[in-house]
Amino acid sequence: MRLDHVGIAVKDWPQAVDKWREFTGTEPKFEDVSEQGFRVAVFDLGNARIELLGETADNSPISGFIKKRGGGIHHIALEVENIENKMKEAEEMGLELIDKTPQTGLENKKIAFFHPRSFDYTLVELCGPKED
Amino acid sequence: MRLDHVGIAVKDWPQAVDKWREFTGTEPKFEDVSEQGFRVAVFDLGNARIELLGETADNSPISGFIKKRGGGIHHIALEVENIENKMKEAEEMGLELIDKTPQTGLENKKIAFFHPRSFDYTLVELCGPKED
Repeated sequence: MRLDHVGIAVKDWPQAVDKWREFTGTEPKFEDVSEQGFRVAVFDLGNARIELLGETADNSPISGFIKKRGGGIHHIALEVENIENKMKEAEEMGLELIDKTPQTGLENKKIAFFHPRSFDYTLVELCGPKED
Repeated sequence: MRLDHVGIAVKDWPQAVDKWREFTGTEPKFEDVSEQGFRVAVFDLGNARIELLGETADNSPISGFIKKRGGGIHHIALEVENIENKMKEAEEMGLELIDKTPQTGLENKKIAFFHPRSFDYTLVELCGPKED
Protein backbone atom coordinates (compact mmCIF):
# COMPACT_ATOMS: atom_id res chain seq x y z
CA MET A 1 0.00 0.00 0.00
CA ARG A 2 1.27 3.46 -0.86
CA LEU A 3 -0.05 7.00 -0.47
CA ASP A 4 -1.17 7.92 -3.97
CA HIS A 5 -2.50 11.44 -3.49
CA VAL A 6 -4.12 14.01 -1.25
CA GLY A 7 -7.27 15.67 -2.62
CA ILE A 8 -7.70 19.34 -1.65
CA ALA A 9 -10.96 21.14 -2.41
CA VAL A 10 -10.55 24.81 -3.33
CA LYS A 11 -13.12 27.51 -3.82
CA ASP A 12 -11.10 30.06 -5.79
CA TRP A 13 -9.75 27.90 -8.62
CA PRO A 14 -7.37 30.17 -10.59
CA GLN A 15 -5.84 31.70 -7.47
CA ALA A 16 -5.29 28.29 -5.83
CA VAL A 17 -3.83 26.71 -8.97
CA ASP A 18 -1.39 29.60 -9.40
CA LYS A 19 -0.37 29.48 -5.75
CA TRP A 20 0.29 25.73 -5.73
CA ARG A 21 2.14 25.98 -9.05
CA GLU A 22 4.44 28.65 -7.66
CA PHE A 23 4.84 27.07 -4.25
CA THR A 24 5.63 23.55 -5.49
CA GLY A 25 7.50 24.69 -8.59
CA THR A 26 5.50 22.05 -10.48
CA GLU A 27 3.35 22.42 -13.58
CA PRO A 28 -0.03 20.73 -12.99
CA LYS A 29 -1.79 18.37 -15.36
CA PHE A 30 -5.45 19.31 -15.71
CA GLU A 31 -8.35 16.88 -15.81
CA ASP A 32 -11.92 17.77 -16.56
CA VAL A 33 -14.57 15.73 -14.79
CA SER A 34 -17.39 18.07 -15.74
CA GLU A 35 -19.88 15.21 -16.02
CA GLN A 36 -19.50 15.04 -12.24
CA GLY A 37 -19.24 18.78 -11.78
CA PHE A 38 -15.58 19.23 -10.92
CA ARG A 39 -12.08 19.65 -12.32
CA VAL A 40 -8.69 18.57 -11.08
CA ALA A 41 -5.18 20.04 -11.16
CA VAL A 42 -2.69 17.25 -10.49
CA PHE A 43 0.67 18.29 -9.05
CA ASP A 44 3.04 15.35 -9.25
CA LEU A 45 5.66 15.73 -6.52
CA GLY A 46 7.48 12.56 -7.53
CA ASN A 47 6.70 10.33 -4.58
CA ALA A 48 2.99 11.26 -4.44
CA ARG A 49 0.57 13.78 -5.88
CA ILE A 50 -1.53 16.69 -4.72
CA GLU A 51 -4.85 16.98 -6.50
CA LEU A 52 -6.60 20.33 -6.30
CA LEU A 53 -10.34 19.89 -6.80
CA GLY A 54 -12.51 22.75 -8.01
CA GLU A 55 -16.24 22.66 -8.62
CA THR A 56 -17.74 23.41 -12.04
CA ALA A 57 -21.32 22.72 -10.91
CA ASP A 58 -22.90 23.08 -7.49
CA ASN A 59 -23.97 19.43 -7.24
CA SER A 60 -20.45 18.00 -7.48
CA PRO A 61 -19.02 15.57 -4.89
CA ILE A 62 -17.05 18.45 -3.34
CA SER A 63 -19.79 21.11 -3.32
CA GLY A 64 -21.15 20.28 0.12
CA PHE A 65 -17.64 20.27 1.57
CA ILE A 66 -16.77 23.66 0.04
CA LYS A 67 -20.09 25.13 1.15
CA LYS A 68 -19.61 23.91 4.71
CA ARG A 69 -15.89 24.57 5.20
CA GLY A 70 -14.80 26.91 2.45
CA GLY A 71 -12.39 24.22 1.20
CA GLY A 72 -9.53 22.22 2.67
CA ILE A 73 -8.11 18.71 2.62
CA HIS A 74 -10.92 16.56 1.28
CA HIS A 75 -9.53 13.01 1.08
CA ILE A 76 -6.46 10.82 0.89
CA ALA A 77 -6.03 8.06 -1.67
CA LEU A 78 -4.18 4.83 -0.95
CA GLU A 79 -3.02 2.63 -3.80
CA VAL A 80 -3.06 -1.14 -3.57
CA GLU A 81 -2.09 -3.83 -6.09
CA ASN A 82 -5.51 -5.47 -6.15
CA ILE A 83 -8.41 -3.21 -5.27
CA GLU A 84 -11.10 -5.92 -5.31
CA ASN A 85 -9.18 -8.03 -2.79
CA LYS A 86 -8.56 -5.03 -0.55
CA MET A 87 -12.23 -4.01 -0.71
CA LYS A 88 -13.26 -7.50 0.36
CA GLU A 89 -10.70 -7.55 3.16
CA ALA A 90 -11.86 -4.09 4.33
CA GLU A 91 -15.50 -5.20 4.43
CA GLU A 92 -14.49 -8.21 6.49
CA MET A 93 -12.83 -5.73 8.89
CA GLY A 94 -16.19 -3.97 9.20
CA LEU A 95 -15.21 -0.92 7.13
CA GLU A 96 -18.03 0.53 5.07
CA LEU A 97 -17.50 1.28 1.38
CA ILE A 98 -19.59 3.90 -0.42
CA ASP A 99 -18.73 2.20 -3.73
CA LYS A 100 -19.60 -1.48 -3.62
CA THR A 101 -17.83 -2.03 -6.96
CA PRO A 102 -14.92 0.11 -8.22
CA GLN A 103 -15.57 3.27 -10.22
CA THR A 104 -13.20 4.48 -12.92
CA GLY A 105 -11.06 7.42 -11.81
CA LEU A 106 -8.30 9.51 -13.39
CA GLU A 107 -5.81 7.59 -15.57
CA ASN A 108 -8.36 4.75 -15.77
CA LYS A 109 -7.50 3.70 -12.25
CA LYS A 110 -10.13 1.68 -10.42
CA ILE A 111 -11.21 3.64 -7.35
CA ALA A 112 -13.59 3.18 -4.41
CA PHE A 113 -14.41 5.47 -1.49
CA PHE A 114 -15.02 4.46 2.08
CA HIS A 115 -17.68 6.10 4.18
CA PRO A 116 -15.92 8.74 6.35
CA ARG A 117 -17.30 7.11 9.51
CA SER A 118 -15.18 4.06 8.68
CA PHE A 119 -12.03 6.07 9.37
CA ASP A 120 -13.09 8.49 12.13
CA TYR A 121 -14.18 11.30 9.75
CA THR A 122 -11.30 10.81 7.29
CA LEU A 123 -12.46 10.25 3.73
CA VAL A 124 -10.28 7.47 2.29
CA GLU A 125 -10.16 6.53 -1.37
CA LEU A 126 -8.73 3.20 -2.40
CA CYS A 127 -7.24 2.96 -5.88
CA GLY A 128 -5.70 0.29 -8.04
CA PRO A 129 -2.57 0.74 -10.18
CA LYS A 130 -2.70 2.85 -13.33
CA GLU A 131 -4.27 0.82 -16.15
CA ASP A 132 -3.38 1.09 -19.85
CA MET B 1 9.59 19.05 -2.81
CA ARG B 2 7.96 15.80 -1.75
CA LEU B 3 4.88 14.83 0.22
CA ASP B 4 6.31 13.74 3.56
CA HIS B 5 3.18 12.82 5.50
CA VAL B 6 -0.50 13.35 6.14
CA GLY B 7 -1.50 14.08 9.74
CA ILE B 8 -4.83 12.62 10.84
CA ALA B 9 -6.34 13.62 14.18
CA VAL B 10 -8.25 10.83 15.93
CA LYS B 11 -10.43 10.89 19.00
CA ASP B 12 -10.51 7.20 19.88
CA TRP B 13 -6.78 6.41 19.95
CA PRO B 14 -6.56 2.62 20.52
CA GLN B 15 -9.39 1.84 18.12
CA ALA B 16 -7.92 4.07 15.38
CA VAL B 17 -4.37 2.74 15.81
CA ASP B 18 -5.60 -0.86 15.57
CA LYS B 19 -7.71 -0.11 12.52
CA TRP B 20 -4.92 1.62 10.61
CA ARG B 21 -2.47 -1.14 11.61
CA GLU B 22 -4.78 -3.81 10.24
CA PHE B 23 -5.84 -1.84 7.16
CA THR B 24 -2.32 -0.82 6.08
CA GLY B 25 -0.64 -4.03 7.25
CA THR B 26 2.03 -1.79 8.77
CA GLU B 27 3.35 -1.67 12.32
CA PRO B 28 3.41 1.95 13.53
CA LYS B 29 6.26 3.66 15.31
CA PHE B 30 5.02 5.59 18.33
CA GLU B 31 6.18 9.04 19.37
CA ASP B 32 5.24 10.76 22.58
CA VAL B 33 4.94 14.53 22.41
CA SER B 34 3.28 14.80 25.81
CA GLU B 35 4.95 18.15 26.54
CA GLN B 36 2.65 19.45 23.81
CA GLY B 37 -0.28 17.23 24.79
CA PHE B 38 -0.35 14.72 21.95
CA ARG B 39 1.05 11.43 20.70
CA VAL B 40 1.76 10.14 17.23
CA ALA B 41 1.55 6.74 15.52
CA VAL B 42 3.64 6.86 12.36
CA PHE B 43 2.68 4.40 9.61
CA ASP B 44 5.46 4.34 7.02
CA LEU B 45 3.95 3.30 3.69
CA GLY B 46 7.30 3.44 1.90
CA ASN B 47 6.75 6.46 -0.33
CA ALA B 48 5.16 8.63 2.38
CA ARG B 49 3.78 8.34 5.89
CA ILE B 50 0.46 8.59 7.67
CA GLU B 51 0.70 10.10 11.14
CA LEU B 52 -2.22 9.46 13.48
CA LEU B 53 -2.39 12.20 16.10
CA GLY B 54 -4.11 11.62 19.42
CA GLU B 55 -4.47 14.08 22.27
CA THR B 56 -3.06 13.38 25.72
CA ALA B 57 -4.12 16.77 27.11
CA ASP B 58 -7.01 19.01 26.12
CA ASN B 59 -4.82 22.01 25.27
CA SER B 60 -2.84 20.26 22.52
CA PRO B 61 -2.51 21.66 18.98
CA ILE B 62 -5.17 19.18 17.80
CA SER B 63 -7.68 19.58 20.64
CA GLY B 64 -9.68 22.36 19.00
CA PHE B 65 -9.87 20.43 15.75
CA ILE B 66 -11.06 17.24 17.46
CA LYS B 67 -13.59 19.16 19.53
CA LYS B 68 -14.99 20.91 16.45
CA ARG B 69 -14.95 18.07 13.92
CA GLY B 70 -14.55 14.86 15.87
CA GLY B 71 -11.27 14.25 14.01
CA GLY B 72 -10.17 13.91 10.41
CA ILE B 73 -7.31 14.96 8.14
CA HIS B 74 -5.50 17.69 10.03
CA HIS B 75 -2.55 18.69 7.85
CA ILE B 76 -0.15 17.72 5.09
CA ALA B 77 3.60 18.02 5.37
CA LEU B 78 5.84 18.86 2.44
CA GLU B 79 9.56 18.21 2.63
CA VAL B 80 12.10 20.53 1.06
CA GLU B 81 15.90 20.42 0.98
CA ASN B 82 16.36 23.80 2.64
CA ILE B 83 13.51 24.89 4.89
CA GLU B 84 14.88 28.37 5.65
CA ASN B 85 15.14 29.20 1.94
CA LYS B 86 11.65 27.89 1.26
CA MET B 87 10.20 29.84 4.20
CA LYS B 88 11.76 33.02 2.84
CA GLU B 89 10.49 32.31 -0.67
CA ALA B 90 7.00 31.58 0.69
CA GLU B 91 6.91 34.85 2.63
CA GLU B 92 7.91 36.69 -0.53
CA MET B 93 4.92 35.00 -2.21
CA GLY B 94 2.71 36.49 0.51
CA LEU B 95 2.14 33.22 2.37
CA GLU B 96 1.84 33.58 6.12
CA LEU B 97 3.87 31.34 8.41
CA ILE B 98 2.73 30.60 11.97
CA ASP B 99 6.33 29.71 12.85
CA LYS B 100 8.70 32.48 11.94
CA THR B 101 11.68 30.26 12.69
CA PRO B 102 11.66 26.45 12.39
CA GLN B 103 10.57 24.30 15.31
CA THR B 104 12.03 20.85 15.93
CA GLY B 105 9.67 18.05 14.94
CA LEU B 106 9.84 14.25 14.93
CA GLU B 107 13.21 12.74 13.94
CA ASN B 108 14.80 16.14 14.66
CA LYS B 109 13.42 17.52 11.42
CA LYS B 110 13.06 21.27 11.21
CA ILE B 111 9.37 22.09 10.73
CA ALA B 112 7.22 25.19 10.25
CA PHE B 113 3.48 25.57 9.82
CA PHE B 114 1.68 27.99 7.55
CA HIS B 115 -1.48 29.73 8.61
CA PRO B 116 -4.41 27.77 7.07
CA ARG B 117 -5.64 30.94 5.33
CA SER B 118 -2.44 30.88 3.28
CA PHE B 119 -3.65 27.74 1.51
CA ASP B 120 -7.44 28.14 1.40
CA TYR B 121 -8.10 26.36 4.72
CA THR B 122 -5.48 23.65 4.20
CA LEU B 123 -2.97 23.42 7.03
CA VAL B 124 0.44 22.94 5.43
CA GLU B 125 3.58 21.98 7.32
CA LEU B 126 6.96 22.49 5.75
CA CYS B 127 9.76 20.22 6.88
CA GLY B 128 13.44 19.83 6.22
CA PRO B 129 15.24 16.53 5.68
CA LYS B 130 15.79 14.16 8.62
CA GLU B 131 18.78 15.35 10.67
CA ASP B 132 21.24 13.13 12.51
